[in-house]
Amino acid sequence: MKFSPLLDEMIKALQVLPGVGPKSAQRMAFQLLERERSRGVRLAQTLTRALTEIGHCSQCRTFTENEQCELCASPKRAENGLLCVVESPADVAAIEQTGHYSGRYFVLMGHLSPLDGIGPQELGLEILEQRLRAEQIEELILATNPTIEGDATAYYIAEMARAAGVKVSRIAHGVPVGGELELVDGTTLSHSLMGRQPLI
Amino acid sequence: MKFSPLLDEMIKALQVLPGVGPKSAQRMAFQLLERERSRGVRLAQTLTRALTEIGHCSQCRTFTENEQCELCASPKRAENGLLCVVESPADVAAIEQTGHYSGRYFVLMGHLSPLDGIGPQELGLEILEQRLRAEQIEELILATNPTIEGDATAYYIAEMARAAGVKVSRIAHGVPVGGELELVDGTTLSHSLMGRQPLI
Ligand SMILES: [Zn+2]
Ligand SMILES: [Zn+2]
Repeated sequence: MKFSPLLDEMIKALQVLPGVGPKSAQRMAFQLLERERSRGVRLAQTLTRALTEIGHCSQCRTFTENEQCELCASPKRAENGLLCVVESPADVAAIEQTGHYSGRYFVLMGHLSPLDGIGPQELGLEILEQRLRAEQIEELILATNPTIEGDATAYYIAEMARAAGVKVSRIAHGVPVGGELELVDGTTLSHSLMGRQPLI
Repeated sequence: MKFSPLLDEMIKALQVLPGVGPKSAQRMAFQLLERERSRGVRLAQTLTRALTEIGHCSQCRTFTENEQCELCASPKRAENGLLCVVESPADVAAIEQTGHYSGRYFVLMGHLSPLDGIGPQELGLEILEQRLRAEQIEELILATNPTIEGDATAYYIAEMARAAGVKVSRIAHGVPVGGELELVDGTTLSHSLMGRQPLI
């Protein structure tokens, strides 16, 4: 035991956060106790609410505290019949930022990774397949990361779309290969959306 | 708005933590939501309890959820009549680690810094002065950091001790000058405790 039992517990609990080791957890605890008590309590309340109330959108799987996310709930978003598949909610934010896309999304919350036990079911692909058959989808745009796993995931979904008779495309490789979609600048991302090519 | 209102709020709230900017707050939120919901809720509960219950020891000012900390509550710690002044609870932990000190502590929770509005009162020096006069203190050991502010604080307290007729010493400068006490290895810290010199 280095400090009081409750302070030790606080420092240990903070280490659940990614990238936070014992030293930075200690610094965080001291800072909260010395200078940020009320904002720290607010952080705790927000964490509890968020972790209890935020689930996944029933349509696109992104994070939302409602049954549907705002984009899926908007009829305007269904007008052009485009559906864009991305790996994470951050990718949705990055594409929205470009202002060059007004369709809907499907968020995989990851990519196929058999070694980690992440297969089609973990990515909610049965929901996507159902949507491909039930909805009026003009084109499915695959915007998974240009990595080995992202490409493999894109090809898997392309096959699904072809089987369902839906036109499918992949965003252009203006995105640097091996990079992460959410880190790409808006211009490159706009270009790669414009230059998308039919797949299969 | 980048994500759902509650997720945006969660990402913003996490930035109260020192060293956490928008990008790492986003990574933390996603990680908690995707993989660590129950440990995240436990973190929130621990934060609430710690920020509500942890106060300062009435004797030495260190962090504790009790009226007195464990060290101040132990009669054994009063036996040798030594009282060691440090800047932070982490310094107490570092000195305890050496195993070469069995007296009591006084934790300033900072150092004199007039420009930041931190004077004798903010460091609880009236409590220390009272203890110097009321208790049987054989020697006051000043173990503030060997920085300009730490030295100035030590000299200020040394004057106080002299006025109260208490013997006062400063830990030896085996500690690298300009460094932080809590980062020093145990051997160096033991040596600097052993080699302490009378002050004034
Ligand atoms: Zn949605
Ligand atoms: Zn104490």
